[in-house]
Amino acid sequence: MKLTVQSDYTLRVLMHLAVNSKGLVTISEIAQHFDISKNHLMKVAHQLSKRGVIEAVRGRSGGLRLAQSPNDINLGNIIKFIEQSSVMVECFPGGKNGCILNNACRLKGILFEAQTAFFECLNKYTLADLVVDNSPLKQLLLETNAA
Amino acid sequence: MKLTVQSDYTLRVLMHLAVNSKGLVTISEIAQHFDISKNHLMKVAHQLSKRGVIEAVRGRSGGLRLAQSPNDINLGNIIKFIEQSSVMVECFPGGKNGCILNNACRLKGILFEAQTAFFECLNKYTLADLVVDNSPLKQLLLETNAA
Repeated sequence: MKLTVQSDYTLRVLMHLAVNSKGLVTISEIAQHFDISKNHLMKVAHQLSKRGVIEAVRGRSGGLRLAQSPNDINLGNIIKFIEQSSVMVECFPGGKNGCILNNACRLKGILFEAQTAFFECLNKYTLADLVVDNSPLKQLLLETNAA
Repeated sequence: MKLTVQSDYTLRVLMHLAVNSKGLVTISEIAQHFDISKNHLMKVAHQLSKRGVIEAVRGRSGGLRLAQSPNDINLGNIIKFIEQSSVMVECFPGGKNGCILNNACRLKGILFEAQTAFFECLNKYTLADLVVDNSPLKQLLLETNAA
């Protein structure tokens, strides 16, 4: 059971921006910070920007920042949005529907129910729950930026 | 959010064996039936056999059959067993732990809680729930065997 790398990177970007809320952060800084692909991050930033969760300020001293309060950024909604193109099994909407049992199989409904339980659990949390009063996280995310 | 192809194939094999409970079914028959890789199915059958869920009868007229009643084959347990080598995000046990936030990140706990909710939901169901009184499924799985 695997989330896409986009979800992983999305959550890192959001935590990074939440901790560095007083300024703008560039994609290069985030990529360097986590030692991850800049291309992947650009796609993630584009998605988040399109959804209005972050905003990109253009120009020489530009960068990214949150466009919403961390209290309003729900983890379930964000992960569901990013995972929308990933299908749990191939009979799910968007899958190849390559199974001959498709119309007779009860499993799809059961897996959908379990997936709903997964997202309902995440819906209880916001970005604020990850960063508020989390000094070790702040230290890690601010230290590298200052370096 | 994706399950491994092994989980998908495992559930197809189990449904196939449950419906054809009066005889033995070969891996070749299942592969042909679903138009999927025989090699993948052999790995899946090996795992299920090791766990005591199915048994393999050797010899010329050999094949696979369920070693437990469909009522005793819990879907949550089976999928959890098959998915054990798949990590949701790389900071989960078995992952590469390649994130610098690893020790300060609250997300791991939240994702683990959501994963638990997913499996708890599946724990409510057994293989019997998929096959009992499911005539369309039986028709699909028996028809091809008779062909």
